[in-house]
Amino acid sequence: MSFDLKPGERLDDLQTKGLRIIQSDEVFSFSLDAVLLAHYVTLRNRDRVLDMGTGNGVIPLLLASRSDLPRRERIIGLEIQERLADMAARNVSGNQLQDSLEIVNGDLREAVERFGHESFDTVTCNPPYRPAGVGDASLNPHVRIARHEVTCTLQDVVTTAAKLLKYQGKFAMVHRPDRLAEIIAEMKAHRIEPKRLLLVHPRAHQRPNIVLIEGIKGGKPELRIDPPLIVHNEDGSYTQAILDIYAGRGEFAR
Amino acid sequence: MSFDLKPGERLDDLQTKGLRIIQSDEVFSFSLDAVLLAHYVTLRNRDRVLDMGTGNGVIPLLLASRSDLPRRERIIGLEIQERLADMAARNVSGNQLQDSLEIVNGDLREAVERFGHESFDTVTCNPPYRPAGVGDASLNPHVRIARHEVTCTLQDVVTTAAKLLKYQGKFAMVHRPDRLAEIIAEMKAHRIEPKRLLLVHPRAHQRPNIVLIEGIKGGKPELRIDPPLIVHNEDGSYTQAILDIYAGRGEFAR
Repeated sequence: MSFDLKPGERLDDLQTKGLRIIQSDEVFSFSLDAVLLAHYVTLRNRDRVLDMGTGNGVIPLLLASRSDLPRRERIIGLEIQERLADMAARNVSGNQLQDSLEIVNGDLREAVERFGHESFDTVTCNPPYRPAGVGDASLNPHVRIARHEVTCTLQDVVTTAAKLLKYQGKFAMVHRPDRLAEIIAEMKAHRIEPKRLLLVHPRAHQRPNIVLIEGIKGGKPELRIDPPLIVHNEDGSYTQAILDIYAGRGEFAR
Repeated sequence: MSFDLKPGERLDDLQTKGLRIIQSDEVFSFSLDAVLLAHYVTLRNRDRVLDMGTGNGVIPLLLASRSDLPRRERIIGLEIQERLADMAARNVSGNQLQDSLEIVNGDLREAVERFGHESFDTVTCNPPYRPAGVGDASLNPHVRIARHEVTCTLQDVVTTAAKLLKYQGKFAMVHRPDRLAEIIAEMKAHRIEPKRLLLVHPRAHQRPNIVLIEGIKGGKPELRIDPPLIVHNEDGSYTQAILDIYAGRGEFAR
């Protein structure tokens, strides 16, 4: 494998299936949130999958590494920032995953025009979590776009996913718990019925700081909430559940 | 204190502040759900409070026993079933709480007409959890009405609460997690913004089976999800958190 690194970039080990990933603290580095989402979403053989706002492509890479589903159709990662889309494309070629992964540089608000209505079985998204303008002035433009709703809002994400999904298709997202009510209302307003919910707590006695949610387009109302996922033991070390997920052995209940 | 018991009824100790309560397995006995809701809801001095579908009045009794708020206006318990409203009224008089509690026999679908728009600071509800017609044929009518949406649906409950509440008034409900998406969407559709959410798990590694939610009429979107509340230790005994709540010492974060 050969990776073409640009200034300010580094090559990290994804710690699963020998995958490696180009990152840059100036521009984009993946977080636990992306890893959790890639392992949480339900996939079926031959699903056509879109990851909206793919950043450096970490979610498509991890989806391609999942061992529960050996064969599937193309996974597309869509990214609005040219510099990040370029990094993601180099991650695909560096890992020799061109046969199953494709990176597209484009705006998710134009995704329906580009890909067509009801063109995907599954849509994933690790969107910006915070409204635009809330404490984002000091950030560089790349980080600002990734973290704040500058180029897309929660509503853009859900509206677009609803249009892109086939009937009974799945939408999975990772977000912040303080926006859960908005997320659920938005999903239901666009006929994506929330079906699975997982709250992730830094420690067992603390409030959750990550929420994972999956909905089905046209699904019938019945939400399954899973047992809490705890990230750290009381001594600060990672819990076995998290170590298993990072190693690609984590089994989310489905 | 003297309680006027009818056939099939028994007198139980509420285990807090010396309160006792008439119950009947044929008609209505309170559950952990009611105890949790009574301690979860935010109350302020002099709040005017309505408990919709009060059953034998357990929630008003427990609200009146809360030590965090020594003075408040009248608490009203509304109950559609005459036999239960009568039991609740005897629970009020038996515990000599007539000065602060009142039981009204009536239908919550007529509550706005009876009490007026924007007439309460706080509305609580431990409603029937299951849709009508789903496995309810074998139940006696009293239990059927308490557990199934025969005389009121989730939509009735939220619509009515939204009309009865003053601006910035609070609505608190206990329900089943599998209906959380419906609950949140319904609350938001009626401008009751979900602000606090608590999931209650039988054991730490199990899915939640109870959800507590509190919303503010006209509140701004920002949901706080609390650390999970666990009911049983792995050996089956109650956790200290639950024992504290039963004893009226439980402090829910507010």
